[in-house]
Amino acid sequence: MVPVLPFDVRLPARGGGGLSHALREQLRAAVLDGRMLPGSTLPSTRAMADALGISRNTVVKAYDQLVAEGYVLPRPGAKAVVAAILPRPRPGPRAGRHPLQDPRLNPLWRTPGVRPEAPREWPERCFRLGMPDHRHFPHDVWRRLTAACLRRLSRARFGYAPPEGLPELREAIAQHVVFTRAVACGADDVLVTSGAQQAFDLIARALVTPGQTKVAVEEPGYPPLRAAFMAAGAKLVPVPVDDEGLCVDRLPADVKIISVTPSHQSPTGVAMSLRRRSALLAFARDRQAVVLEDDYDGEFRFGGRPLDALQTLDRDGLVFYVGTFSKSLFPSLRKGFIVTPPWARPALAGVKHCADSHCDTITQSALAAFIREGHLARHVRHMRPIYGKRREALLGGLRCDLADWLEAIPSEAGLHLAARIRKPPQAAAIVEAMRRCTPGAQTTSDYAMQAAPPWALSFGYGVIDAGDIGPALRRMRRALSTTQ
Amino acid sequence: MVPVLPFDVRLPARGGGGLSHALREQLRAAVLDGRMLPGSTLPSTRAMADALGISRNTVVKAYDQLVAEGYVLPRPGAKAVVAAILPRPRPGPRAGRHPLQDPRLNPLWRTPGVRPEAPREWPERCFRLGMPDHRHFPHDVWRRLTAACLRRLSRARFGYAPPEGLPELREAIAQHVVFTRAVACGADDVLVTSGAQQAFDLIARALVTPGQTKVAVEEPGYPPLRAAFMAAGAKLVPVPVDDEGLCVDRLPADVKIISVTPSHQSPTGVAMSLRRRSALLAFARDRQAVVLEDDYDGEFRFGGRPLDALQTLDRDGLVFYVGTFSKSLFPSLRKGFIVTPPWARPALAGVKHCADSHCDTITQSALAAFIREGHLARHVRHMRPIYGKRREALLGGLRCDLADWLEAIPSEAGLHLAARIRKPPQAAAIVEAMRRCTPGAQTTSDYAMQAAPPWALSFGYGVIDAGDIGPALRRMRRALSTTQ
Repeated sequence: MVPVLPFDVRLPARGGGGLSHALREQLRAAVLDGRMLPGSTLPSTRAMADALGISRNTVVKAYDQLVAEGYVLPRPGAKAVVAAILPRPRPGPRAGRHPLQDPRLNPLWRTPGVRPEAPREWPERCFRLGMPDHRHFPHDVWRRLTAACLRRLSRARFGYAPPEGLPELREAIAQHVVFTRAVACGADDVLVTSGAQQAFDLIARALVTPGQTKVAVEEPGYPPLRAAFMAAGAKLVPVPVDDEGLCVDRLPADVKIISVTPSHQSPTGVAMSLRRRSALLAFARDRQAVVLEDDYDGEFRFGGRPLDALQTLDRDGLVFYVGTFSKSLFPSLRKGFIVTPPWARPALAGVKHCADSHCDTITQSALAAFIREGHLARHVRHMRPIYGKRREALLGGLRCDLADWLEAIPSEAGLHLAARIRKPPQAAAIVEAMRRCTPGAQTTSDYAMQAAPPWALSFGYGVIDAGDIGPALRRMRRALSTTQ
Repeated sequence: MVPVLPFDVRLPARGGGGLSHALREQLRAAVLDGRMLPGSTLPSTRAMADALGISRNTVVKAYDQLVAEGYVLPRPGAKAVVAAILPRPRPGPRAGRHPLQDPRLNPLWRTPGVRPEAPREWPERCFRLGMPDHRHFPHDVWRRLTAACLRRLSRARFGYAPPEGLPELREAIAQHVVFTRAVACGADDVLVTSGAQQAFDLIARALVTPGQTKVAVEEPGYPPLRAAFMAAGAKLVPVPVDDEGLCVDRLPADVKIISVTPSHQSPTGVAMSLRRRSALLAFARDRQAVVLEDDYDGEFRFGGRPLDALQTLDRDGLVFYVGTFSKSLFPSLRKGFIVTPPWARPALAGVKHCADSHCDTITQSALAAFIREGHLARHVRHMRPIYGKRREALLGGLRCDLADWLEAIPSEAGLHLAARIRKPPQAAAIVEAMRRCTPGAQTTSDYAMQAAPPWALSFGYGVIDAGDIGPALRRMRRALSTTQ
């Protein structure tokens, strides 16, 4: 009789040497026919013994034999790996063709621009954009709330949930944005997404008719947002940005979706003026267009009365407001949301359901409790002076050390600050000094859709200490002084 | 001077009655201009006081005044809500038009079939398909592993991660499927997804050219998979299923993607014969087509030597193997994976990055540890006899009580069992008895793409106790006996 096992390994019911032999034979067969690839690790002897319900000694004996026969390579202090012996030939990309040129792929994914770049490896402390500081996050609170949600999981939230998100999280988000961003909404208007990126993607899929819909994006602007619209088959139109934000008078008349970052333009940091906001909403109303408002770091404001969200001014259901917890909490949480006009609600819920059913409920519950108990507001309040001090150091350094080359662009919010290049002919040298002395900082060209010389640099201050900013900018000054 | 606050509420710096008055005024304004909608709850006085850094008494006073004025309704033992007073008119769907008919939507999302149905509310114990039993899940282990991952979060995994998934999880999944399903793969071939639904969606987006690509689906088959392909603009071709699985000889010659459930057909439970598997792979090879293998509950097997995955037989990089942890762990975890042929790897990673950057890293880490430490294999081993007993009860009941009406369809795996309707003219009465006596059970018509009379019923045994199965089937017999 063969015991029922969770693994596709069948052992004789009676123990003794037969067990070990049977295990060895079946592992050997898996190596020989390519089910275990060269270099892949074997489960630990303990895990294997547990899984099969046999003694560890039996597994050790089988492994030893495989090592002796050369099928498996032991590694001191680490799991054994499969040796490079007789591997089954595995199909690779066809010779002479880049995998993305395979004709079996949707042509959209064969164009490189659609695929956003994979995340880069940066030093832990650097000037990168859009990363919050993990050292100040209330990890203990988050752990406690997650544990509480997991205790409740045994009775509820185990199965499938609504695509729009858990009711308690939608309610908490609605309250949060009503208060912090003056967004006009109720819980029903909120759709929980897997970060802002999924919000862009769902909106693009719900609204773009492939090959037809024209979408205006800020130039320069956030590249992954462009990727989502390109992937949906949109025709992208880059529209320039000036000191008042998007140049509304440059919008083509037949554009159907206009994507903007009115609180803190990405990457120049400019806030869209009230005049432009009104003009944008009037344009959208007149042309049957809609607006995507990406409010990615508007929670962090420094001085001045903040402008409300663009959505606050919308009386006609034209604005899709996108928020994220990547900056106010942390990126790997993958939680964001859309405040959607009522007419688009059923379609967006349908896209979300089709895309991944719904967001995982444990994180949704923990986040709802985090917001409801006031931790989010408290954390933002705690971080604001910390980021504010870094921003001051950056402004001071730009003024004192780099005034010959750079001029800060006024901005009152967010986790990065941009500076205009004063002498365009020296742009190349300035960018080179930036890359060397302030790693993580970006240029307008890095964010632009069309090739153009860089005209401003953006410095993030989410993960750099205030005390390290001045010295970095002084190094940049020295580098520039010597090249002149 | 106005203190900087995380909320868009501005209070005078000096306390006293002024604070409470200012808070009241601003809340009142928010209610009047529609930023706080009727029925939405106010934050608790404690949360509000914490957030604004003022005393709770001050908040209580402001709230009391709002209640006195009728803007806010107190609720004993619960949070106060905004009264239905002077709401700002909010844009709704245009009169006389269903929201899904709005011309601003991508026409794809205007066709109802694309939108999978929202999850239904079922009794906790019932015959629904595809739901595992939460009472046997090792919640304590999962809590411990999650807590450990959250402790590490303070130093790592806080920021963005690779779109393909965390290396440790891809490695753990590869090992798991090599052993349990004889899938030929290494960690590099694994892409972590937000459940099987996202796997379908990513594959559809990467491979389907809208309006052109023909996709064969099993008839009957899993509706949300069809939705993903329809949303990508595929032309769906339903292909019938018989006792050996998909009728390969009924595939149209120009089909480019063939979606199958070879281990346990959804919903009939049939395993695809070896002959058909070979024919399917030969078809795909000859016609430059690819195969999506949806192995949604193949871990649970009862007796007999199981057939390996279809992917095991593939020597040409034709098969996309989709697995999920929704059945072996739990659905709201939202974790699944694709084992992808190497040629499609870069495109799929691109689609994933565009769709939502990556899956949340805490759950990924916890899941990797859960698999690596052997808990997944152990849990599957623990559940198999439990589900097996229910399956026996179901088979017994069908044989003893319902043999006049139903005949079990042979099947050796999964969390549900199907039974063919013996007397098609009585189908309506049988289905009616099923809906009344075994809630959650489904018919082949519920899964079919084309309207057709039901010819089989599927009973899930994931969340029904073995002892409740017999009585339910006996009730069904009584209902049928009296209608005859």
